[in-house]
Amino acid sequence: MTTPLRLGIAGLGTVGIGVVKIIQAHADLLTERSGRPVVISAVSARSRSKDRSADLSGYAWETDPVALATRDDVDVFVELMGGADGPAKDATEAALDVGKDVVTANKAMLAHYGQELAQTAEAQGAVIRFEAAVAGGIPVVKALTEGLAGNEIRRVMGVMNGTCNYILTRMESSGLPYEDVFEEAKQLGYLEADPTLDVGGIDAGHKLSLLASIAFGTQVAFDAVELEGIQRISIEDIHHAADMGFKIKLLGVAQMTGRGLEQRMSPCLVPATSPLGQLDGGTNMVVMEGDAVGQIVLRGAGAGEGPTASAVMADILDIARGYRISTFGKPAARLTPAKAAKATAPAPYYLRMELQDKPGALAKIATVLGEAGISIDRMRQYGHARESAPVLIVTHKTTRDSLDHALSGFAATQVVMGEPVAIRIEEV
Amino acid sequence: MTTPLRLGIAGLGTVGIGVVKIIQAHADLLTERSGRPVVISAVSARSRSKDRSADLSGYAWETDPVALATRDDVDVFVELMGGADGPAKDATEAALDVGKDVVTANKAMLAHYGQELAQTAEAQGAVIRFEAAVAGGIPVVKALTEGLAGNEIRRVMGVMNGTCNYILTRMESSGLPYEDVFEEAKQLGYLEADPTLDVGGIDAGHKLSLLASIAFGTQVAFDAVELEGIQRISIEDIHHAADMGFKIKLLGVAQMTGRGLEQRMSPCLVPATSPLGQLDGGTNMVVMEGDAVGQIVLRGAGAGEGPTASAVMADILDIARGYRISTFGKPAARLTPAKAAKATAPAPYYLRMELQDKPGALAKIATVLGEAGISIDRMRQYGHARESAPVLIVTHKTTRDSLDHALSGFAATQVVMGEPVAIRIEEV
Repeated sequence: MTTPLRLGIAGLGTVGIGVVKIIQAHADLLTERSGRPVVISAVSARSRSKDRSADLSGYAWETDPVALATRDDVDVFVELMGGADGPAKDATEAALDVGKDVVTANKAMLAHYGQELAQTAEAQGAVIRFEAAVAGGIPVVKALTEGLAGNEIRRVMGVMNGTCNYILTRMESSGLPYEDVFEEAKQLGYLEADPTLDVGGIDAGHKLSLLASIAFGTQVAFDAVELEGIQRISIEDIHHAADMGFKIKLLGVAQMTGRGLEQRMSPCLVPATSPLGQLDGGTNMVVMEGDAVGQIVLRGAGAGEGPTASAVMADILDIARGYRISTFGKPAARLTPAKAAKATAPAPYYLRMELQDKPGALAKIATVLGEAGISIDRMRQYGHARESAPVLIVTHKTTRDSLDHALSGFAATQVVMGEPVAIRIEEV
Repeated sequence: MTTPLRLGIAGLGTVGIGVVKIIQAHADLLTERSGRPVVISAVSARSRSKDRSADLSGYAWETDPVALATRDDVDVFVELMGGADGPAKDATEAALDVGKDVVTANKAMLAHYGQELAQTAEAQGAVIRFEAAVAGGIPVVKALTEGLAGNEIRRVMGVMNGTCNYILTRMESSGLPYEDVFEEAKQLGYLEADPTLDVGGIDAGHKLSLLASIAFGTQVAFDAVELEGIQRISIEDIHHAADMGFKIKLLGVAQMTGRGLEQRMSPCLVPATSPLGQLDGGTNMVVMEGDAVGQIVLRGAGAGEGPTASAVMADILDIARGYRISTFGKPAARLTPAKAAKATAPAPYYLRMELQDKPGALAKIATVLGEAGISIDRMRQYGHARESAPVLIVTHKTTRDSLDHALSGFAATQVVMGEPVAIRIEEV
């Protein structure tokens, strides 16, 4: 019971230092809770000379993360370097190959190599834990894998990229266009070095693919996530959506349908009064729906030193307590290949277009929709001083196929100026 | 790995039958997730002849829950009878005495006997799990004990009695007084046989005392919970609070202060725009604040067959997976006696009183507050056609002592008619 659990931590950025600080500050608390001391044997990072806000003098230093991962005095390899490939993956594999447990915050690595890493882990009797990879400090992996384990999961949804949510809510509150707020976020250091990871929905898509694997017992299939970023969201659409009682969110949705597994990460409208609609700024939210439990909503900080380190510590303490669980909640060999849904579930859509100001224009649009089998829930035409009139339409539920059919029909009418905007309305 | 985990279920009410249904419907799913079959060996309930919506013919029947709890073919005793004392406690003790694990939804039993039951369990190498005892289907016990285990917990709050939240939100939406909505809730079957358990805050207080033990590593101290029910909340106060941007909630708050452990279950005002303020109807919400993770919010159904059975299943599956954890997150012997705080943390207060309509009345009130060291944040006096004027005051932060001092001061002015209303405003 009192054998210490010995960690090797690779990556001493914000999160790594956060973990070191917690272990130093709360040593007694952690021992009481997990039943054994949690200690750091060795650390590793790109630069040893960098000034860091924690005292690392008590730990061995390894230049090579692979060497760190395989040290005799390391029980758990804590991978906080990031990056799908390269040193993170090499060191993770090296740790698993010698039967060491791995705790990681690396969503990209798991989204791309989750299945093979899980298989390696299980072959060696090791576990991989990744609470910090999804929604920062919120214990969503634990809630889904363990807390809701008695449920057949119906749907998992979430706002899982705080930067995108910051940009969208800041656009609404400031009235500034996307480009300006994007620059603001960049200045504030909110964006990844490659901002497409954030605003293109890739980072959030990685997270969604991990939750989908747990929820539906399928192999991680990040390549099958339909990805659409927030770059084309205009301030006009944010304002019009608000007028109609909606917010625009970069929303991830995974659900198992008769047509296969649907995974989408894309801008959606959600009711302004729903928990997701009320989520402002950089906060994350994950919604899980199970056949027995109904809807569970979890909300909290999705990034940052403390929250992410808190999630890493939860995994470490579970291992200290002796918890052993398959990476994605059931044995890797039992995870089924995800059959990607050919089409997304029907939904209402928000449409915005500019109509030429001439008689019969609106009738033509309505006719196209009718012919595509799409009925109109609400429509608004705004007053205008130009030669075109902005028109908003909220449709009843329709398929994406019917919608695409209608969109090409609009073009043929020659009364629609420019490209119509179509955004899915998710029922939440 | 494939040895079945064998259950004995005592209590076949809503929750018990819910558990039976999940086990029957999801046998394969549960086996895949936990690594072993989960089977029911025997069941027990007060009446065998009652018509139940599940087929129980495959299970042995025990009339005596103690006999059930100690059967050789039972690994886990699932206690779903309820009641702090009597058969539930007898059978739980019997199970623990022979080293069997216990899963229970019984908040009353644990609030009163949690410490001694935890000690018995640990002496016998057994575990007690009680996810279903707090906030129904929301995995709050797991989130706090495991998901946030790396944190020093600062505060735990929650709306944990759906019936009270239903009554309060229904009062606001209908404009009906407490008594009428109480009757409505009774007709709808929302109230316990002894309604004081709900509206007196006792049931929610039980839950709070369990979360406080986990959060602060203290022995369960239900007797130290300051309890105040919702029976005296008037429709006037609900409306006035709404005018000032607040909602009234039966809110549980546990926090460790320099003065000791504070546990309160009482009506509070919270900002209408906060997650707690936006919680309508019978839904539950628990808010946890940790030094690393910041604020985590969990929301979901706090009662009902499916949600509560989901929580029971989570505990059963954790045991099937081999998870062993101390009842309240650290060994029972290490839980410290809770030193109850002598006074509650300072807070702003909402005050409502009827002032006699004569010159200088308001000045007298303001003077009393000033002399008690209480400063005024906002004040409203409403137009009136009577001989008295309703006055609302929101104070800045003050202690309960100062407030009580002011309240007696008001009486001495002889300009306040009747009893002033004072409700704490919780910062959330």
